[in-house]
Amino acid sequence: MGMILLRYGEIALKGRNRVQFVRRLRRNIRACLKAYNLEGTVQSVGQRIYVYTEQVQDALEPLSRVFGLVSLSPVSEVARDIDAIVEECVRQAREAGVGPGVSYRVRARRADKTFPHTSPEIGRLAGEAIWREVGGEVDLSKEADVTLGVEVRREAAFVYGHVVAAPGGLPVGVEGRVVALISGGIDSPVAAWLMMKRGCGIIPVHFSANESETQKALDNIEALGRYSYGWNLRPTILDHHEAVGPTLEKLRMLGEERWNCIFCKRALLLKACEIASDFQAHAVVMGDSLGQVASQTLPNIEVISYNMPKPILRPLIGFDKTEVVALARRIGTFDISTRSESSCPFLPAHPITRASVEKLIEIARRLDEMELHDA
Amino acid sequence: MGMILLRYGEIALKGRNRVQFVRRLRRNIRACLKAYNLEGTVQSVGQRIYVYTEQVQDALEPLSRVFGLVSLSPVSEVARDIDAIVEECVRQAREAGVGPGVSYRVRARRADKTFPHTSPEIGRLAGEAIWREVGGEVDLSKEADVTLGVEVRREAAFVYGHVVAAPGGLPVGVEGRVVALISGGIDSPVAAWLMMKRGCGIIPVHFSANESETQKALDNIEALGRYSYGWNLRPTILDHHEAVGPTLEKLRMLGEERWNCIFCKRALLLKACEIASDFQAHAVVMGDSLGQVASQTLPNIEVISYNMPKPILRPLIGFDKTEVVALARRIGTFDISTRSESSCPFLPAHPITRASVEKLIEIARRLDEMELHDA
Repeated sequence: MGMILLRYGEIALKGRNRVQFVRRLRRNIRACLKAYNLEGTVQSVGQRIYVYTEQVQDALEPLSRVFGLVSLSPVSEVARDIDAIVEECVRQAREAGVGPGVSYRVRARRADKTFPHTSPEIGRLAGEAIWREVGGEVDLSKEADVTLGVEVRREAAFVYGHVVAAPGGLPVGVEGRVVALISGGIDSPVAAWLMMKRGCGIIPVHFSANESETQKALDNIEALGRYSYGWNLRPTILDHHEAVGPTLEKLRMLGEERWNCIFCKRALLLKACEIASDFQAHAVVMGDSLGQVASQTLPNIEVISYNMPKPILRPLIGFDKTEVVALARRIGTFDISTRSESSCPFLPAHPITRASVEKLIEIARRLDEMELHDA
Repeated sequence: MGMILLRYGEIALKGRNRVQFVRRLRRNIRACLKAYNLEGTVQSVGQRIYVYTEQVQDALEPLSRVFGLVSLSPVSEVARDIDAIVEECVRQAREAGVGPGVSYRVRARRADKTFPHTSPEIGRLAGEAIWREVGGEVDLSKEADVTLGVEVRREAAFVYGHVVAAPGGLPVGVEGRVVALISGGIDSPVAAWLMMKRGCGIIPVHFSANESETQKALDNIEALGRYSYGWNLRPTILDHHEAVGPTLEKLRMLGEERWNCIFCKRALLLKACEIASDFQAHAVVMGDSLGQVASQTLPNIEVISYNMPKPILRPLIGFDKTEVVALARRIGTFDISTRSESSCPFLPAHPITRASVEKLIEIARRLDEMELHDA
């Protein structure tokens, strides 16, 4: 039976929430294994989690996408015997490529203090054996090319020579639910991903304007699913025209097309807030950054947010486009979002960039009057 | 006269806003030079900015903190002559440490197409000369240890061998104003910095509860000032007790101390929104992340945001603590924020973590009734 050591960071500090957080993390890890048809058992030991599985290599990549984990290592279990530990260190150092020009260090941790060798002694003995039998240069700093780890526990000793990075954050689900507007574009999936990273269960909402954009949105949501183990991403698809068409038509009749984007975004957000209420979600997430397009100005953000019944979270508000693109590539949504582009048919030639709440209220009043007239 | 080449990224794409953005960028660059008593002139040439100064080395570090710039390079001006260009490339390659085991590449750009050698030719001739006279290994990829640059313009040719990174973003001031709550802690200065990076002029507001925290807040604001050239950070300091004391006293009388943090944050934000209105700012920025402390839950964020007259921007909402700390170190606020710690005397033993808007409204009503009773 193979074994993987999984490390969590921030959630170790969570005080009395710790137990609940780690339970959710184990549950999400199990959901991840299940999604890939991997057999395995998941167990907490001290401040670590261990996965026991016959399919260590297949499990590493999926597990490296579980939020709450900071890193993982395939480990070898050996007897609680200094010779066995040293021998395994030498074997793993060789496997990891230690040799002339490749530096290494050994970090030992004696969780069981009854073991007759202290942590520094274990590190020294293993380090010397590697130097004698494999070569390489000792480098006790973080800069070492290869870091070997030894953990001595009551039941056995563990040795690892390879650390896989994981995304950090908090286990999906521990922080409750948010509605996330997801389009076919680059920004909104990244915004949703950042909230997943902070432990949110995402309720994706897409307003469908045409087939290709909707397919991109669905593919984006599927890509996000590869980070959402333990929380099922069930998209709600609504008709874009139904949500905003009548308002845009009236804005045209009033000669206020410059306000199209403002009223459109407000209509979508209001609907998303409604859905949030229905699903006991506490906020709506969107991909707004500041100043990336003409309509993403501070005055417009103020007017779009005005009187919204739920908080609007904008995790990308401080990001440069290059930073959003880098994250989208990492998540795997960039290629989906950029495979085609369809521009909005209602985008005015000169969208308003300096909206004001006073003007918003005035236009909204005129729209209401038209409605009364219609009736 | 020495010369520095400054490159801007995102703002080059800004369409019709470009002229205004670049003008603001030049103004901020001038303000930066002035802040360090550096003489220099600032000039746009094509999609680049040049700074002419006798104090190139002194100017590099301050200029590397101007938002809107992505990188800078000290450049040597040489005659528009292929031999002069090649000779200068060899000199700079030597200076940059090219030699055995150090790889290099030459990137040439012929802005003036009347120059008799094409860009690839210039690169090849300079590369060969370096190889002959200095040694080293050619590596045409981004991974090269040293990248030498050549720009041939109408008036002269420029050669550079050293690129200093700058923070990207947009020039401070182009996106308008926001009020930023600044405490003595780690998060709020980083949140403000991210909004400065996106072109905001920051109006810092601090609620003073004790001297040492206020000194930390002022030092944080001073540190932020090193990124805010062209925009004067004038802190508004208000009395914390005056803003929230009476409400906390009443909560105690009602036996609702668990709601202290909620009502405190709401009082500070409401005051900040007022200041935003006074200063024509469009939003209030705060350092909230999700789930970092017991009170930063989604339900609490919903209740704290409820009915706020301005949008509350939370640029750190999707950040891990480790990411915030890394940014704080880079900005230079981490050592200030951590030099002492004073905990809030009104922090209840069990702050509420699952606030609801209904309960908020109920408690607010009871607080109002007490007020009527007082009168």
